[in-house]
Amino acid sequence: MNQEKVSELRNWMQKNNVDLAYISDASHIGYFSGFDSNPMERVLALFIPLEKDPFLFAPGLEVEDAKASSFEYDVVGYLDSQDPFSIIVDEIKKRYGSPKKIALEKNQLVLDRYLRLSEAFPAADFSADLTPLVQELQLYKTEEECQQLIEAGSTADLAFEIGFRHVKPGITEEEIVAEIEYELKKKGIKQMSFPTEVLAGPNAASPHGTPGKNTCKENELVLFDLGTIVNGYCSDATRTVACGKPTDHQKDIYNIVLEAQLSAQEAVKPGITCGELDKIARDVIESHGYGEYFNHRLGHGIGTTIHEFPQIVGGNDLVVKEGMCFSIEPGIYLPDDVGVRIEDCIYVTKDGCIPFTKTSKELIIL
Amino acid sequence: MNQEKVSELRNWMQKNNVDLAYISDASHIGYFSGFDSNPMERVLALFIPLEKDPFLFAPGLEVEDAKASSFEYDVVGYLDSQDPFSIIVDEIKKRYGSPKKIALEKNQLVLDRYLRLSEAFPAADFSADLTPLVQELQLYKTEEECQQLIEAGSTADLAFEIGFRHVKPGITEEEIVAEIEYELKKKGIKQMSFPTEVLAGPNAASPHGTPGKNTCKENELVLFDLGTIVNGYCSDATRTVACGKPTDHQKDIYNIVLEAQLSAQEAVKPGITCGELDKIARDVIESHGYGEYFNHRLGHGIGTTIHEFPQIVGGNDLVVKEGMCFSIEPGIYLPDDVGVRIEDCIYVTKDGCIPFTKTSKELIIL
Repeated sequence: MNQEKVSELRNWMQKNNVDLAYISDASHIGYFSGFDSNPMERVLALFIPLEKDPFLFAPGLEVEDAKASSFEYDVVGYLDSQDPFSIIVDEIKKRYGSPKKIALEKNQLVLDRYLRLSEAFPAADFSADLTPLVQELQLYKTEEECQQLIEAGSTADLAFEIGFRHVKPGITEEEIVAEIEYELKKKGIKQMSFPTEVLAGPNAASPHGTPGKNTCKENELVLFDLGTIVNGYCSDATRTVACGKPTDHQKDIYNIVLEAQLSAQEAVKPGITCGELDKIARDVIESHGYGEYFNHRLGHGIGTTIHEFPQIVGGNDLVVKEGMCFSIEPGIYLPDDVGVRIEDCIYVTKDGCIPFTKTSKELIIL
Repeated sequence: MNQEKVSELRNWMQKNNVDLAYISDASHIGYFSGFDSNPMERVLALFIPLEKDPFLFAPGLEVEDAKASSFEYDVVGYLDSQDPFSIIVDEIKKRYGSPKKIALEKNQLVLDRYLRLSEAFPAADFSADLTPLVQELQLYKTEEECQQLIEAGSTADLAFEIGFRHVKPGITEEEIVAEIEYELKKKGIKQMSFPTEVLAGPNAASPHGTPGKNTCKENELVLFDLGTIVNGYCSDATRTVACGKPTDHQKDIYNIVLEAQLSAQEAVKPGITCGELDKIARDVIESHGYGEYFNHRLGHGIGTTIHEFPQIVGGNDLVVKEGMCFSIEPGIYLPDDVGVRIEDCIYVTKDGCIPFTKTSKELIIL
């Protein structure tokens, strides 16, 4: 168990008169307990009381793995034929009596699980929301976590290197994806943090395009958005490269995005707000008349999940502080024409920031 | 939009006096609307009123794709800098006034989205749960859906063929995974339905083991659990093969699991219950003294998601009917010794069942 984070959680519980915290999100359970698992539709839950020992509730077939993890307290299992919530309720009553105030992850807990709990403890107060606290705790990465993110970043650089090597006229997007993931897997990098995007030509103008049988063509750009998971930490980076000589129009769009990306990245330091960073990149793109084609936020936090807090988005007054880690990823998407996005994830130092990925951001011509 | 399914939904709404249905699960939104997307933490929602036209609510950068899908009604987008729920509430009021009864997916909708809606419509009744209805609708696959599942099954067979070809002493589990996914991706099969499991020797005794640097060894078994996604439909199958000559003990365990799998699969026909099927397989394994080492349900439904209803589990009195599709996957896991699981997904016909995967279930020696 991560005693330091649990102790911060308990400080918050004490301040808010919370008796019991119910952590329901699998990645947050991993964060606090040290037991990483994807239970799919089965129930995985971590109960942390203000006093007394926590317990982990897990599907029966995960119990051995949970006990072998760094979580040093009781693990309670259930069989698929059992009703998990009646066991949970019994365990809570047996261990902690009738908690007066139970804090929940309101942006994660599904309604029927909440209803089961609130029926079992009709007198309990469920007003306390763990979500902002967990987001706040996860906002600041320790040095050890930064090291993991740096390592994940270097495997994203490796993925670019592999991908760029295969760019040539006639190769399909999905073939390049296959080559990247094959070489990574052979090197033991098992998991991508999201489905790898390789989008050629106008296909890159859909920010959520899907790689398919579309081929790279001479004098077109190719967008790579990819990430890996290393020791539970994610990387996420985007590069746009040219297949053969780019047109002046493509170069212009590229250079505007690059200017936006570099301007925002150079502006990162403790004290600036998330909204100000978004504005810096957006102003560059707007000043060139392409504002409406940058139709997403500038960035998102990264850590054990691919999208977490902070949101680097207009109107977010959250002040950037040392230890935060997030993406800076402006883009311009001109339908049926060209799509460019450039992205690094960075960590905030005491007077600036350092990117996790080092692949050149100058327009690479392949 | 899938008019047939929406009309069944509306029949249910009428019977239950529901004015408005809020579909919040991305795969269910795909099922009803025809627009498939993974919004991650962003908000994607489908609102279907009893009368009037439905509307889809989507992140701004998905709006164009949604409009290009088979969903023929309004698509409302939002920017990352906007509060999605205030837009949703305004749209509902503008389009449908003040619905008296709003049905929700209670096993899927997260608590804070429910709270936002219930605050905006304090007089509305939120007691109606869409979950059982959607599960019921998805229980029965149309002939067209079965065709998609058959196609997905045949690519799982292809995946086995690739994987088996690479089994030899010294190769790591993760290398075999890399080879399988590489060849599939090159053939245009882009997505696995879950992380491919190749588990060698005792590593297969953990039902949720992870492939790594563990190698195949002479006289050990290797477990393959894998699936693909083809046109949005999933396959899922498991085979356990031998690397070199298996020991008598390994063959014994294999044959018990095979007997359990075949007994249950042969028993599938309309009229039997899910719980009875589980018991048939479990009885075989228990009769050989390994009951405690078969520590999961016999199976789960499959369709556009990898785990859906019905649950093939002890105590489930749901009666099997024509058109249901589910897995039959008994296993025996002897810690530090051997793990065997054999799985086919099947569809129920009028007098039996047909498996989606055809790879031989006799013990293959490689």
